[in-house]
Amino acid sequence: MAEENEILKELEALFPGRVVTPVRYVQESWWPLAWINRSYLGSAVAAVVPESVEDVVRLVRFAYERGVPLNIVGGGSSVTGASAPRGGVVVDLKRLNKIREVDSRQRYAVVESGVVLQELEQVLNQEGLTLGQFPQSMDIATLGGFISTMGSGHSSSGYGNVEDVVSRLEVVVPPGEVYWTSFRRVPRSSLGPDLSKIFVGAEGAFGVITAAELKLYDLPKFIWEDSALFSTFEEGVEAVEKLASLDLPPKMVRLYDELETAYYTGLEGAVLIFRFATQSKAFLEAARSEVSDILRQGFRGPELVHKLLQERPNYREHITRILHRGLIVDTVEIAASWDKVADLYRAVKEALRGVEGVYFVTAHLSHIYRHGACLYFTILFMPSESLYFKIWDAVYSEAERFGATISHHHGTGVVKQRYLELEKPAELYRRLKAALDPKGILNPGRLVP
Amino acid sequence: MAEENEILKELEALFPGRVVTPVRYVQESWWPLAWINRSYLGSAVAAVVPESVEDVVRLVRFAYERGVPLNIVGGGSSVTGASAPRGGVVVDLKRLNKIREVDSRQRYAVVESGVVLQELEQVLNQEGLTLGQFPQSMDIATLGGFISTMGSGHSSSGYGNVEDVVSRLEVVVPPGEVYWTSFRRVPRSSLGPDLSKIFVGAEGAFGVITAAELKLYDLPKFIWEDSALFSTFEEGVEAVEKLASLDLPPKMVRLYDELETAYYTGLEGAVLIFRFATQSKAFLEAARSEVSDILRQGFRGPELVHKLLQERPNYREHITRILHRGLIVDTVEIAASWDKVADLYRAVKEALRGVEGVYFVTAHLSHIYRHGACLYFTILFMPSESLYFKIWDAVYSEAERFGATISHHHGTGVVKQRYLELEKPAELYRRLKAALDPKGILNPGRLVP
Repeated sequence: MAEENEILKELEALFPGRVVTPVRYVQESWWPLAWINRSYLGSAVAAVVPESVEDVVRLVRFAYERGVPLNIVGGGSSVTGASAPRGGVVVDLKRLNKIREVDSRQRYAVVESGVVLQELEQVLNQEGLTLGQFPQSMDIATLGGFISTMGSGHSSSGYGNVEDVVSRLEVVVPPGEVYWTSFRRVPRSSLGPDLSKIFVGAEGAFGVITAAELKLYDLPKFIWEDSALFSTFEEGVEAVEKLASLDLPPKMVRLYDELETAYYTGLEGAVLIFRFATQSKAFLEAARSEVSDILRQGFRGPELVHKLLQERPNYREHITRILHRGLIVDTVEIAASWDKVADLYRAVKEALRGVEGVYFVTAHLSHIYRHGACLYFTILFMPSESLYFKIWDAVYSEAERFGATISHHHGTGVVKQRYLELEKPAELYRRLKAALDPKGILNPGRLVP
Repeated sequence: MAEENEILKELEALFPGRVVTPVRYVQESWWPLAWINRSYLGSAVAAVVPESVEDVVRLVRFAYERGVPLNIVGGGSSVTGASAPRGGVVVDLKRLNKIREVDSRQRYAVVESGVVLQELEQVLNQEGLTLGQFPQSMDIATLGGFISTMGSGHSSSGYGNVEDVVSRLEVVVPPGEVYWTSFRRVPRSSLGPDLSKIFVGAEGAFGVITAAELKLYDLPKFIWEDSALFSTFEEGVEAVEKLASLDLPPKMVRLYDELETAYYTGLEGAVLIFRFATQSKAFLEAARSEVSDILRQGFRGPELVHKLLQERPNYREHITRILHRGLIVDTVEIAASWDKVADLYRAVKEALRGVEGVYFVTAHLSHIYRHGACLYFTILFMPSESLYFKIWDAVYSEAERFGATISHHHGTGVVKQRYLELEKPAELYRRLKAALDPKGILNPGRLVP
């Protein structure tokens, strides 16, 4: 990178009044490692807040010409370090926040990257539509960050994950060109590979996502929310696999292990909550009849659904309380095929039981598929950097042993880069990186260092 | 390319007894343009028939070192020229035909590229499973070709398209490395972009697909097939959009326009056929009740379903008869959002009505989505090369005018390359090509010339 002051002066000339000190981007983080060791908050010489795609183009061109690293930042809700800057300039996309179009006849929206997911959902709801993506972080996560980290929400079994609702992307690629990954709004095209998929999960390393075309759903007309109690988590897993294989699976399913069940509800056993949401009463009634056959122990009512889902927005308050007590809490979401889920759950618990400084390990089944599920672990431990990595490596070892992935929906960030080469052919990512960002100016060190 | 005889000698030394004259690869084709002008059948100096992934690796290494173009060929059922060799060596993958694994507990299979889709489906059926992909060409199309051309089958509204059932790919990439796009069998991973998607639809230009891991479905236990008659195609389109928006859409839906209806059934109007297939009776009954509300004119029974689906395997006999009469028949499948479908249908018919040498144009709605549908046109015309391109350009013009794609599931091939730059950012494909196949030895001229 050229001399720092010079870069700042040039940036200021390019974006008068919109180059700010990067203080806030290196002060706050939802990445637990940064709470333990603040040096992980990262560093930057300046932050720029583009207000248009043209601004992003100018910025990428500038960075390309001058060899300046750009750290693309959305809502900053990553828990794996995906938004910690690593020198150079922070590009804060939050003012790329236009909802360019909502087509309620065709159920499409075109939305800029900086729009916060919850605000988008509210606008869509007013049109009778939903994106169906409800990550815990939706009040701070932006659409661009959600796409870049390949996020997901609690209703993925009904509405799919982010890759299922993104139909096209607008990206700025070095040396500074804007592309839509397809020029047409069509349900499907076999004219070449779907280029949007290269950028979903790339964490900004291949291009800057500036907008997305999204496939929307009608808001449901009929909803059935209910709960059930199992004597053990493993027993619940068996039942949930059956729910996942229904012709029409529930939109939302969460199964809490005994510790989380006790903590959140005071009940003994493993609580299951679920939601069916349909356009027609007939399909809802069919679901009710099928689920009654699976959950022969009967239902515990919708109150537990509300109670447990309400814990989600409260999560950050929980964290703050825990931090005030001098402890750290982290979450690890690993996904495996159904035959492995229960054993993997036990193995991770067992592996962490022996680790000094770990206070407790709880889990719930958070996302389900016909072919497997995601186990979402919450781990409370002493604030120690070496312990942090010890915990991650221990969980990873079990994931590897059971053929699971170490990342279901929290992306790669910094902490999971350690495992990327072990799960994916990193050489192919390196080739894509060289092709799309030959000078390595976009989120340097991300995805493949 | 080095001197031809020398190449042949070296190949023969590398693959003793498995280098054959390429005669059959340039004699037969399902590409209508090659029936009009046999020079489009292409040319090759030799064909190699690898029997293992290791063979493919050796072949790619050889080609990379010696600068020899490789033309990857599967079943050869492309109707757009995707399998016509363009000089160099034909790589016939049909002997990479092992079904490596069928895991009926987890509903996964690992299958090599050369396996013919119908044979795969039969093996899976014996295990109570289905891939759910039923292209018309399934008795000759191979899995590898189906993936490479981004194919689809008649039940895509229930089982998805090929990209939805491929979970991982094994690919050989120059200079000659084998990669799985992910090393784990997991339902989903956010550890970097899904690399398999780069190869789906790339028509062999980015790598040689040697095997795929596939997500399977249980065979349905309950089936309801039925039909209905509309007075006009447009009226049918309105009803089909409602079917596509059901909580549980039909697995298969086809709506035939008045000409196809008359030709195949002798009835007046537009025939709709559909199939619901479920694991539970309750969901099938719910579907029946919902569909009864949509199709108030009543049902015409399952016989029309059988009759019309039976026409599919007979299609090639039809073609042969037509060819014997000195005529050419081609098919064009274009997809658009629902608000455009009926107008686009009329516009294409209208545009071709004025073209001299076109005898008739018929269509059916072949694939449906919540967000749009595919119109599948069949066009009968005089055997003339200029007419062939005139027809394609006329259909493309209407597709462009209505924001449709010129390719729903027949890939890019040769004929649709003309339109790729108009629908997709070809520059990004070029960058990927340079990254993955820097010497341009794989299917040279394909996708992006």
